[in-house]
Amino acid sequence: MAQGQVTVTPDDGRTTRQRRHTPLVVVHSGAGKGKSTAAFGLALRGWNQGWSIGVFQFVKSAKWRIGEEEALLALDEVHRTTGKGGPVEWHKMGSGWSWSRKAGTEEDHAADAQEGWAEIKRRLAEETHQLYVLDEFTYPIKWGWIDPEDVVTTLRERPGYQHVVITGRDPHPALLEIADVSTEMTKLAHPFDKGQKGQKGIEW
Amino acid sequence: MAQGQVTVTPDDGRTTRQRRHTPLVVVHSGAGKGKSTAAFGLALRGWNQGWSIGVFQFVKSAKWRIGEEEALLALDEVHRTTGKGGPVEWHKMGSGWSWSRKAGTEEDHAADAQEGWAEIKRRLAEETHQLYVLDEFTYPIKWGWIDPEDVVTTLRERPGYQHVVITGRDPHPALLEIADVSTEMTKLAHPFDKGQKGQKGIEW
Repeated sequence: MAQGQVTVTPDDGRTTRQRRHTPLVVVHSGAGKGKSTAAFGLALRGWNQGWSIGVFQFVKSAKWRIGEEEALLALDEVHRTTGKGGPVEWHKMGSGWSWSRKAGTEEDHAADAQEGWAEIKRRLAEETHQLYVLDEFTYPIKWGWIDPEDVVTTLRERPGYQHVVITGRDPHPALLEIADVSTEMTKLAHPFDKGQKGQKGIEW
Repeated sequence: MAQGQVTVTPDDGRTTRQRRHTPLVVVHSGAGKGKSTAAFGLALRGWNQGWSIGVFQFVKSAKWRIGEEEALLALDEVHRTTGKGGPVEWHKMGSGWSWSRKAGTEEDHAADAQEGWAEIKRRLAEETHQLYVLDEFTYPIKWGWIDPEDVVTTLRERPGYQHVVITGRDPHPALLEIADVSTEMTKLAHPFDKGQKGQKGIEW
């Protein structure tokens, strides 16, 4: 296929080798399916490179990603027991972020989202992971909980070699502007339209 | 999100439970990235359900999926050693299909593709897998090597509970017609446009 073909010869003073090691911001948007599944597919590639993978789920709907979570944590276990691949961490909002010991007595989704983003900023500064999956991260931005300018500035100025994949509908225009790869998943046909409800293995 | 919402109340005489256990044909098309990665993300969900997963790569570009192959085969190993998840098989055209002992002396891609499809038909008849990933399967159909009517009839009449995911650009209209879920990946931005070449972990 044409995937490896370069359509423009760049004139940016960088070598091919330098361009091959450019950390990317990837955005998966659109109303179709596949935004998150494609992000987790990228995590498989990163895992095989030995990268540290950090997944951060920004919307409370734990059951929807359980398949990917179980599989990626099984790969983390493979890494810890055999040295193959890389480590994987999976953090989710809702009942409190995994790194936080805060009891989830009172639900404040805006504060939870902000806490998640603050942790991601710390990790980007410390170069903790090589691949960050910020799943459904477009929504807390859309809902006004997280400042898009802060996100854009943080991503632009992140040090080292850190890829960031962001999923969700209606990404803020500033996000699309800094994206190196941006794919819109468009729905052509979907069983929900025919009254088909979600089923295990397919939806979660 | 609205993912779980049913927009139409069906009038097909089936119960919700029956509709929840409908085997699906899923098509990922379009010029954007994520067609295959999303298919492999679905494989993670299926693996966690204990499904048997069969991956069939229909285009000779082995290096492009090495990350997913290594990671999914590691999950197969997890299944074999711990019983967790399901088995995964990975077959690729090019140097000969894994089940075939034929030496790849003379390259005949059309014959290879036809051999692959014949094996998938046998497996569908025997209900070998619960999830089939037919990666880049749109191309041998497009190139006239495999009869789209045969594909459509086979998929329509497949027995039991077998999901089939097909990826690739320009799917034959008959394929789109029988698809239960069809997503088009549209490119909004891509580093190849800026002269960025593929890099490991992201492209393969």
